[in-house]
Amino acid sequence: ASMARPPTDFPYLPPADRDLMLSLLTTVEDRLGSALLPSNVSPDVLRFQNSNGSAHGSVNIRSGSQSSPVDFVLQSWLNCKTPGGGEINIASLFAFLNSSTDAPHLLFELIHGSPTSIVLIMDLIPRRDLVLHPDYLDKFYQQTDLDGPRRHLDSLPQVSPYYSSSLFIRSVLSPTSIAVSVDFGKEGEASAMEEMVAEHIGGAAKKIVEVWLEKCAGVRVLGVAEGERLELERRDELIKRKAVEIDLAANLPRMFGPEVAERVVAEIQMAFRV
Amino acid sequence: ASMARPPTDFPYLPPADRDLMLSLLTTVEDRLGSALLPSNVSPDVLRFQNSNGSAHGSVNIRSGSQSSPVDFVLQSWLNCKTPGGGEINIASLFAFLNSSTDAPHLLFELIHGSPTSIVLIMDLIPRRDLVLHPDYLDKFYQQTDLDGPRRHLDSLPQVSPYYSSSLFIRSVLSPTSIAVSVDFGKEGEASAMEEMVAEHIGGAAKKIVEVWLEKCAGVRVLGVAEGERLELERRDELIKRKAVEIDLAANLPRMFGPEVAERVVAEIQMAFRV
Repeated sequence: ASMARPPTDFPYLPPADRDLMLSLLTTVEDRLGSALLPSNVSPDVLRFQNSNGSAHGSVNIRSGSQSSPVDFVLQSWLNCKTPGGGEINIASLFAFLNSSTDAPHLLFELIHGSPTSIVLIMDLIPRRDLVLHPDYLDKFYQQTDLDGPRRHLDSLPQVSPYYSSSLFIRSVLSPTSIAVSVDFGKEGEASAMEEMVAEHIGGAAKKIVEVWLEKCAGVRVLGVAEGERLELERRDELIKRKAVEIDLAANLPRMFGPEVAERVVAEIQMAFRV
Repeated sequence: ASMARPPTDFPYLPPADRDLMLSLLTTVEDRLGSALLPSNVSPDVLRFQNSNGSAHGSVNIRSGSQSSPVDFVLQSWLNCKTPGGGEINIASLFAFLNSSTDAPHLLFELIHGSPTSIVLIMDLIPRRDLVLHPDYLDKFYQQTDLDGPRRHLDSLPQVSPYYSSSLFIRSVLSPTSIAVSVDFGKEGEASAMEEMVAEHIGGAAKKIVEVWLEKCAGVRVLGVAEGERLELERRDELIKRKAVEIDLAANLPRMFGPEVAERVVAEIQMAFRV
C-alpha cells in the first residue's frame, strides 16, 4: 500500500478529462492530507481488464482516518472499446463522509461516450431530507450558491439536462445537482469538447469541490446526536447499496465478465461496508 | 356555502386552459364526491381584485370530510394586466391529503405569461424522504410510470426544463415532476399553444390526476403509526408554510395591494392550518 500516485492514473482518458480528474483528485488529497489512510486496494482491482483486452479499468479507495469526518474517497476509471471502433471512458470521484457529520457527500462522474459527447453528473449529495431540514438546504446549497455553476452550464447551447433512468439516483441528487449531457454532434470538433471540459466543466467542478472541502469535509466534527447517527448511517447505506446495485453490478459484468466484476464489486462493497 | 360550480370559474383563462382546468377539477370533485365538504370560503376571497381593476383573482378551498384521507382541495386563478398591454394568467389546483395516509399530494400550476408561452408545474409531491423509502418511490412513481408523461413533454421541441428560483420548491418536487416552460416564440401561433395545452399538457395532467385519484386519494386509510403521523404533519406543514411564504406572500401584495393580499393569505393559512 503506497500513497504515491501511480503514473498510470486515468491512462486512457482524453487529455482534458485527465487533467481535470488529476486536478480534482490532487486538490482533494492535498487538502484532506493525513485524514486519508493509504490505499489497501489489491493490485488486481487497482488495475483490471477483460479477457480479450478490449476493456480496462481501475478502482482505488482510501478510507478516512478514525478522527476524520471522511468515510472514504473512491476514484475509478473504465475504458471500453466499442464495436464501431470507438471507445467509452468513464471517470469517477466519490468522496463520502461518515456519520460524525451530516454534511453532504461529493459525487463527480464523467462519461465520455464519444469524442464529442459527454454525460456529466456532479453534486453534493444531501444526507438529510431537505424538506424537513430547510436550514440544511440553506447552509450547504443556498449560501454557497451551488446553483451558480449549474446555471452556467445550463446556459451553454451544447448542454442539455440528463435524466438518469433510475428514479432512485434522481432522488439522491440535490436541487442544484448538475446532470447534463454535452453534445457537439457528429460534425463537432474534439477540440471544442476539450475546451468545454477544461473551462466550463472544470470551472464548475472546481467550485463544487471547493465548497465540499471548505463547508463539508473541512469542518470539525459537529456532534451529531446518537439517534441521528443511526438514521444517517441507514440513509448512507441505502445510497451506497443502490449505487453498487444500479451502477456497478449492472454494468461491470457486461464489460469485464462475471469474475472480474465480482472481484471489483466485492472490494467496493468492503469499503462501502454494505 | 354552495357546492354548485360558479359559472365564473377561470373566466379570464384562454379557452384551452379553461377547458383543461375544468376537466381536471370536475374529475377530482366527481371522484372524491362526499369526501369533500362544501366550500366555506368568504365571497371576497372567492373573488377579489385590485383597486384599479387591472388584476382579478379567485381562491376556493374545500376541506375533506373527517373520514376521508383528503385534507383539502384548493383551486385558484389570477389574472393580471401587464404594462405592455398583455396579461398573465395563473391557474392552480392543489389537492393535499391528511396524515391518515402518507400518499403523495397533487400539484398542478399553469402560468400563462403570454399567448405563446407557459410555465407548467405538475407533480405528485412525495411525503417521505425517497432515499430512505425506496419502496415508496417504487409504489407511487415507478410502478405508475409517472416518468412517462414527463418524458413525453420533454421530447417536444418547444418544451424546456423550468427551474424554480426557490431551491426549497425544487426539493419538494418528485424525481418525475414536470417543471417546464413551453415557448412558441414571439412569432408563434396562439393556436399551436392551444393544441399544446389541450393535447400534450392535458394528456399528461389527466394521467397524473388519474394516478393520484386511484393510488393516493382513493385508497382506504392505511394506518400510519402515531409517531409517523406527527412527522408527516410536520413535513406537510413545512411544505404548506413555505408555499404560502414563497408563492403567495411574495406575489399577491404586488398584484393586489397589501389589504386584499392579507385577506386571501389569511384564508389560505386557515385552510392550511399554518
